[in-house]
Amino acid sequence: MRYLPLAATLFICSSFAVSQSQPQLNLMPIPASVQQGSGALPITKTFSVTVAGVHDPALEAGIHRFADQLSRQTGIPFQPKPEAAGTLTVRAEKPIPALLKLGEDESYQLTVTDSGAQITAPNTLGALHGLQTFLQLVTITPQGFVVPSVTIKDQPRFPWRGLMIDVSRHFIPLDVLKRNLDGMAFVKMNVFHWHLSDDQGFRAESKVFPKLTGTGSEGNYYTQEEIRNLISYAHDRGIRVVPEFDTPGHSRSWFVGYPDLASNEGPFTVEDEHGPESVTDPTREETYKFIDKFVEEMGKLFPDAYFHIGGDEVNGKFWDSNPKIQAFKQAHGMKTNQDLQAYYNEHLQKIVAKHHKTMIGWDEILRPDLPKTIVVQSWRGQESLAAAAKEGFSGILSHGYYLDLIYPASRHYAVDPLGGGAASLTAEQQKLILGGEACQWAEWVTPENVDSHIWPRNAAIAERLWSPQSVTDVNSMYARMHAVSFELEFLGLMHNAARDRMLQRMAGTADITALQILADVVEPVQDYNRWDDSKGPIDFHSPLTHLIDAVYPESDSAREFGNLVQKFAQSGYKDPAIETQIRTQLTLWRHNDAALYPLLQQSALLQEDIPVSQNLAMIAAAGLQALDYLDRGLKEPELWKTQQLTVIEQAKKPVAGLLLPVVAPVQQLVEAASGQSPQK
Amino acid sequence: MRYLPLAATLFICSSFAVSQSQPQLNLMPIPASVQQGSGALPITKTFSVTVAGVHDPALEAGIHRFADQLSRQTGIPFQPKPEAAGTLTVRAEKPIPALLKLGEDESYQLTVTDSGAQITAPNTLGALHGLQTFLQLVTITPQGFVVPSVTIKDQPRFPWRGLMIDVSRHFIPLDVLKRNLDGMAFVKMNVFHWHLSDDQGFRAESKVFPKLTGTGSEGNYYTQEEIRNLISYAHDRGIRVVPEFDTPGHSRSWFVGYPDLASNEGPFTVEDEHGPESVTDPTREETYKFIDKFVEEMGKLFPDAYFHIGGDEVNGKFWDSNPKIQAFKQAHGMKTNQDLQAYYNEHLQKIVAKHHKTMIGWDEILRPDLPKTIVVQSWRGQESLAAAAKEGFSGILSHGYYLDLIYPASRHYAVDPLGGGAASLTAEQQKLILGGEACQWAEWVTPENVDSHIWPRNAAIAERLWSPQSVTDVNSMYARMHAVSFELEFLGLMHNAARDRMLQRMAGTADITALQILADVVEPVQDYNRWDDSKGPIDFHSPLTHLIDAVYPESDSAREFGNLVQKFAQSGYKDPAIETQIRTQLTLWRHNDAALYPLLQQSALLQEDIPVSQNLAMIAAAGLQALDYLDRGLKEPELWKTQQLTVIEQAKKPVAGLLLPVVAPVQQLVEAASGQSPQK
Repeated sequence: MRYLPLAATLFICSSFAVSQSQPQLNLMPIPASVQQGSGALPITKTFSVTVAGVHDPALEAGIHRFADQLSRQTGIPFQPKPEAAGTLTVRAEKPIPALLKLGEDESYQLTVTDSGAQITAPNTLGALHGLQTFLQLVTITPQGFVVPSVTIKDQPRFPWRGLMIDVSRHFIPLDVLKRNLDGMAFVKMNVFHWHLSDDQGFRAESKVFPKLTGTGSEGNYYTQEEIRNLISYAHDRGIRVVPEFDTPGHSRSWFVGYPDLASNEGPFTVEDEHGPESVTDPTREETYKFIDKFVEEMGKLFPDAYFHIGGDEVNGKFWDSNPKIQAFKQAHGMKTNQDLQAYYNEHLQKIVAKHHKTMIGWDEILRPDLPKTIVVQSWRGQESLAAAAKEGFSGILSHGYYLDLIYPASRHYAVDPLGGGAASLTAEQQKLILGGEACQWAEWVTPENVDSHIWPRNAAIAERLWSPQSVTDVNSMYARMHAVSFELEFLGLMHNAARDRMLQRMAGTADITALQILADVVEPVQDYNRWDDSKGPIDFHSPLTHLIDAVYPESDSAREFGNLVQKFAQSGYKDPAIETQIRTQLTLWRHNDAALYPLLQQSALLQEDIPVSQNLAMIAAAGLQALDYLDRGLKEPELWKTQQLTVIEQAKKPVAGLLLPVVAPVQQLVEAASGQSPQK
Repeated sequence: MRYLPLAATLFICSSFAVSQSQPQLNLMPIPASVQQGSGALPITKTFSVTVAGVHDPALEAGIHRFADQLSRQTGIPFQPKPEAAGTLTVRAEKPIPALLKLGEDESYQLTVTDSGAQITAPNTLGALHGLQTFLQLVTITPQGFVVPSVTIKDQPRFPWRGLMIDVSRHFIPLDVLKRNLDGMAFVKMNVFHWHLSDDQGFRAESKVFPKLTGTGSEGNYYTQEEIRNLISYAHDRGIRVVPEFDTPGHSRSWFVGYPDLASNEGPFTVEDEHGPESVTDPTREETYKFIDKFVEEMGKLFPDAYFHIGGDEVNGKFWDSNPKIQAFKQAHGMKTNQDLQAYYNEHLQKIVAKHHKTMIGWDEILRPDLPKTIVVQSWRGQESLAAAAKEGFSGILSHGYYLDLIYPASRHYAVDPLGGGAASLTAEQQKLILGGEACQWAEWVTPENVDSHIWPRNAAIAERLWSPQSVTDVNSMYARMHAVSFELEFLGLMHNAARDRMLQRMAGTADITALQILADVVEPVQDYNRWDDSKGPIDFHSPLTHLIDAVYPESDSAREFGNLVQKFAQSGYKDPAIETQIRTQLTLWRHNDAALYPLLQQSALLQEDIPVSQNLAMIAAAGLQALDYLDRGLKEPELWKTQQLTVIEQAKKPVAGLLLPVVAPVQQLVEAASGQSPQK
């Protein structure tokens, strides 16, 4: 297993030379204002921190974490000791509020000179952000670790910058959530939206209704103590925790223990995806009594002012097929199931308000007669959000920020909460757009690979929500995201390490160079294509251990190769230095299959990827031939082109859920070699 | 930083083709008896475990750990549930003893067929070993994960199979120790020797003498609760914990809080290596009163029957320069400081015995008039051990097992506790050789890199102490060690992951392919050369963050390249397939420096390695030229050879503490090209 035939492996290039120098600072999100100075502050073992303003426990803890991370980044063991005149002085005027509210002042200033640094902030929240900015500035130079001289004045563009993690479809343990909260704090996100219930499992302990997790979680849930622990952990990092209990749809897990809540007969189960589904019955008084007690209990457990009731994707067929519900609709003059859901939501809103919370829900909850205090979270888009704003509702954008759709970071980055249909709003209406939330739905992630589905792409969304609207340079974003990704791994996130671990498992060996080369250039299918390709309902108990589960959602290698081919095209396919780079890369891919095949064929987990590896080899061969034709300045025979395009068309089709995004740039080379104008 | 110039990187081979197939089972240590069957047991999500014999908590916990590790290795989530007829049946006749004693029955039998598996053992200890063996057998095949059919009857050769970790020179936190205990259990080691005090720090909390850690640890110590926690953790894994409190030498940390114990004036400190040293004053009654109370307290804290008092490397000058001590020696008719130490040890032995413990110490404690119950741990070698055995003392071997000396695994593997001077012992005397202990002294390790200094080489020592004496095939050992190393990382050890993390830190980027290529072929200087090369006393507070701290003690690439050149020589330098492999490897090394140089020169941590990288390029060029001459069958000009040997001699010298072990095989090629008989 261990030793790949050497003669067949050959030529691995280490990286691409897309960007030669990065004078910019590796900050993400980019601060509101940055002025670079000259010189730099050395980070040596005498580095120390002085707290000059308020001493609150959150800041003390934040400085301890700062020292830990600085130690990890530099390898210099720091132990924060109170110093009279430390290298870095942190001054916050006010402590962090015991309960974080929407719109807290998160601003800070950071000044670094060659002799010291200061962070000042109106309160601890801002100081914590300043500490993260400082950490991102630490860099190795010929003189050692330094922070470049800089003056930063910073505050967020939007007050609601969230990450939603679905913990129902696959349970995500507390420690994994915690490291993701660390990541959120590192990129200055401030809302953790905890999607705690769905058809596949109810994950928050209720003492009032113990069967919710007792029979609806398969034992995978958070105790109330663990929940309080996570909320406190988040608060220490300036992050609010908004719980979501999805109802009336997506709620089979409620019905396992409490089948009376459902609109049709059970028995219900979370174990078998083939079992009966349902939605909540909104016509029974008992339903509201249940929810009242439940919201009362959860409202105390989760201190945040907002309470998310879901409300999305209600399947009306369960109401249609229940004669009692039909009769109720008629009796109340309701024409549609939307009317019935509105009735339900009005009741819910009153219950939530009674327990001193503000209701938040997905687009479907919106009805003009609901109080304007509610918040709409839009999976439908800026138009939907704008329409709500025009009616006076505030909202947050999630459409465009679904991490589980496997889009490139650039695509998320291009989505502005105030773009699209929201651009036409008045300034007053725009204020109702509170921000946005990245969403990690968990059909296809496990505790092992959830980090790599969230990171580093989530950093691009974090920047969109924090930085000025004018910050839109995609190349800069990718360069900085690459640097931040590296720091996030030092922070404890596993987005890179876990991939290689998974590849090693599939291969049954630690010698995975050839497999890494393949993994580096493939991407999982996007959108809901993996669902569409799967036969029948998803088995949520199946291990997610195939190549599609391990690879990164976005291939850096493929993007960089595409950029290289674009540059080559811009040179009229003449620049010899770029051609050498393209040729070396293609040669690597051309020969990788011969090295990889023995590994793929001996593993039940990898056999399905044999055609992917073969396609890569064939595509690379086509690209190399195209370069040969371009070199000779000859027009290639028509038959050759037809052959290559056949191979290319085949290679465009997903295999084992994997795409080869390098096909498009190779096709560009083939078409250039045939004298056609290259396609974009 | 990120993008290495592609044109300069070139050709990276993925691995070597030294061993094409491994029909052997990847077990380490090799069991006493193995019979392979046909067929294999599939490991699928229906896999379950039945406990058929005693149900003791250690076994229950062991099965939970087994299920966790099986889940990590396969990616299939297992939750151990009691099953009437599980896939694997575990039957232990007796529970694990509450206190593990030397020489417990650790035997077990494991039978695997294509339909199920059984582990039977006289007690839980053996059953735990059987579970580890089962985990090592799990392998990926075209049919999925399986365990091959096999019948194993196994028991250890030696009853004392230990790993000593020094936590004084650099403090190693509890979680790092725990993962190393997991590793020990995985290779069936059964004694954790905890070197808890030395000049640089006292690490175990004493409530009777709180200043021991209060002023002697810089705050880095284990509380008694943590110690109990670790002992329990070890016990659950069948591992005894033997504490060592080194005295009368290596004990400056005692004197910081209790200077009266010392033979000369303080004040003493653990912070400054330039401060005064000392050894314990053995002439004062108060010393023995102190030790009596201390051993009483620690004897209760550490339940093991053995208590290690160190006793090594006593610097007599502190006794010589104290007139009172001199007078005492005269008054008692002692001629040498060895006499005085013997006096001290006799007292210590009585105190240790009074508290129901057996004393163990390093070679120096041995004096014929001590009771035969004491145990000698030999850092001097088998001769020393044999001499003790001949006088009736039992002993354990550590000479040859010092992991901090950076020897290859093969060198440790060749050391047999009953080899060398011990081979001539009678069978009865041989029984006094209880086993051995690997030692990880901690001058040059931190929590970050200690795993890679211990693993995987410690597995070779574990095999030496468990497996039959006849098991000595080095190639087999390396192949199996490679497989076990991979599984150890799944278990949580960081020996591979931490290296790359450290390389990334030095480089300031995650793009470290070229740096990995260099790191793969260098080795730190061996023996105490790093000490000798350092100017003045070691600063134990300096970060260990250079390349020498990150690289593996043993280079697999270099060893495999050496094997390749040997095979090429055996073919009369004619086998074209081997030559291609050698040439590809040399080409990679030849071009790596150009890619790596920009990275090295921009990092204060890496600049010192610039000559190492250049030497590798020059050596590789010499090797390539030698191949060219060999191809042409010509004798090369004398001047060429002289040039190459000059380069080779320069490349043999350590730079930044690093050696290039590929120099020797390249020299062999150069000399072959010059028509000389190649040197071994």
